[in-house]
Amino acid sequence: MKLDRSQNILIVGLGVIGGGYARALSKKGYRVFCITKEQKDIDYAMERGMILYGTTEVEPALIRQADLIIFALYPHVFVDWVKKNQDLFRPGTLITDVTGVKGCIVREVQGMLRRDVEFIAAHPMAGRESSGVEYSDDRVFHGANFIVTPTERNTPQAIALCKELGQTLGFARITELSPEEHDEMIAFLSQLTHCIAVTLMTCNQSPSLEQYTGDSFRDLTRIAKINDEMWSELFLLNRDALLRQMDAFSEEFGRLREMLRTGDVEAMRAMMRTSTARRTLFDKTCTDPNETPKGSN
Amino acid sequence: MKLDRSQNILIVGLGVIGGGYARALSKKGYRVFCITKEQKDIDYAMERGMILYGTTEVEPALIRQADLIIFALYPHVFVDWVKKNQDLFRPGTLITDVTGVKGCIVREVQGMLRRDVEFIAAHPMAGRESSGVEYSDDRVFHGANFIVTPTERNTPQAIALCKELGQTLGFARITELSPEEHDEMIAFLSQLTHCIAVTLMTCNQSPSLEQYTGDSFRDLTRIAKINDEMWSELFLLNRDALLRQMDAFSEEFGRLREMLRTGDVEAMRAMMRTSTARRTLFDKTCTDPNETPKGSN
Repeated sequence: MKLDRSQNILIVGLGVIGGGYARALSKKGYRVFCITKEQKDIDYAMERGMILYGTTEVEPALIRQADLIIFALYPHVFVDWVKKNQDLFRPGTLITDVTGVKGCIVREVQGMLRRDVEFIAAHPMAGRESSGVEYSDDRVFHGANFIVTPTERNTPQAIALCKELGQTLGFARITELSPEEHDEMIAFLSQLTHCIAVTLMTCNQSPSLEQYTGDSFRDLTRIAKINDEMWSELFLLNRDALLRQMDAFSEEFGRLREMLRTGDVEAMRAMMRTSTARRTLFDKTCTDPNETPKGSN
Repeated sequence: MKLDRSQNILIVGLGVIGGGYARALSKKGYRVFCITKEQKDIDYAMERGMILYGTTEVEPALIRQADLIIFALYPHVFVDWVKKNQDLFRPGTLITDVTGVKGCIVREVQGMLRRDVEFIAAHPMAGRESSGVEYSDDRVFHGANFIVTPTERNTPQAIALCKELGQTLGFARITELSPEEHDEMIAFLSQLTHCIAVTLMTCNQSPSLEQYTGDSFRDLTRIAKINDEMWSELFLLNRDALLRQMDAFSEEFGRLREMLRTGDVEAMRAMMRTSTARRTLFDKTCTDPNETPKGSN
């Protein structure tokens, strides 16, 4: 099984991520269809040539003709959708998703799914702080990471096709993790950072701070504009891992506080040097328009 | 007293900030000179037309002919320099700086300074995470904030000229705070964010995280590449205010942790909505090339 332009790709959920997928795939000549809640989003996508056809109904014919179905829904909506409508899949259909937590979702969906349909999970590491198809932009995929999270139920063919999808979408690095490894990693890299950003934004009530801010505060709080419905769900679905990461952060933050309190300059400087060396690893290797000059104040 | 192109502007310390000042001022036709430690930085600046002349020596003639002297040095180096060389200033010379903490510095310099020379302090909120004149870039000033921190010792003329300097450099918003207000604000907006970034970078030792990261982690840790000598000095010079802000952050972070632990979705969502609303205030109003698409994962 290979991704090819004669196949029909159905995107369920045309939001900021589903919309990005539609843009990227249609630009490359793939046949893209969608099912989504709002007719206005379908109109938007049709006008821009992002999809060949879209509907707000669960149309059996549309689902049956799909070779690949990409679910870009909130976690519980995705699980419920499959539960309710899986009879409509054609045997051999491949299903993938974009969900930000994996452990519980992948096991649940694979556990209940018909045996003649395969679900291979993936997490495109390129969300946006705004939601809605009108904010979708496939350029956010360029230079970004795409993580495939197979289990023992997945076939090598499905894993390969999912990786090919990541490449086709424009992701720079395609990797593989178990769902559990993914969740531990995402608790640190993504969920903890959102917790920090939200906290920074609510822990100080001084007025007019925006008149004095530099770019460092702007950068640390960009993601503090947050979809509260989605992120509270993601946090709870990964509660234990996130609590562990929050505690590890708090402990290290407390260490730094103690160095400051006692005036231990050498310890502070050593920590900063470790930080500087480690951060270098995270620079994007490709040309990134977002790494242009920024202030550090 | 007005800034004009017949005046001689002397920059002491041609690093990333002093270099940015030199670029901006020379481009606009001002007469810029410098004193700095390394001959190679002078050569670099001369080749690019950033300065008319530079020296590694404390040349009395150069200092005497300066109308405006801008100190872009580490805090203690700045204080020591003035202590040692203030006899060389011509009466009526105006002095300003770029130091990231104000309370102790401004009071100390103003306290010891000759009465026929005036020091008006300012903080350009546009540092960089790399140091050295070769990383200087006056474009970081555009859209950024410039804070003037006068005391009762300053004249309206000097305050006005310092604000004019900020405008000439290209800053978008020029504001005024007392040194003490400045330090409390900077403890939150700048120093706390650097503490968080450094902590994020050192609190998790898992290998290969960079293979999976999204932009949110990159954004929150951009400033984790940090000049350990300068920032440890800045932290200690503002210790009490920074400890207060670290504690306020930790308390709020603990509140969020408790909401997560107890599964209090409504409280989490309310906190996220507050965060989203407050963050909107911090968007740059001008066109900012750095606010182009970025992922939130």
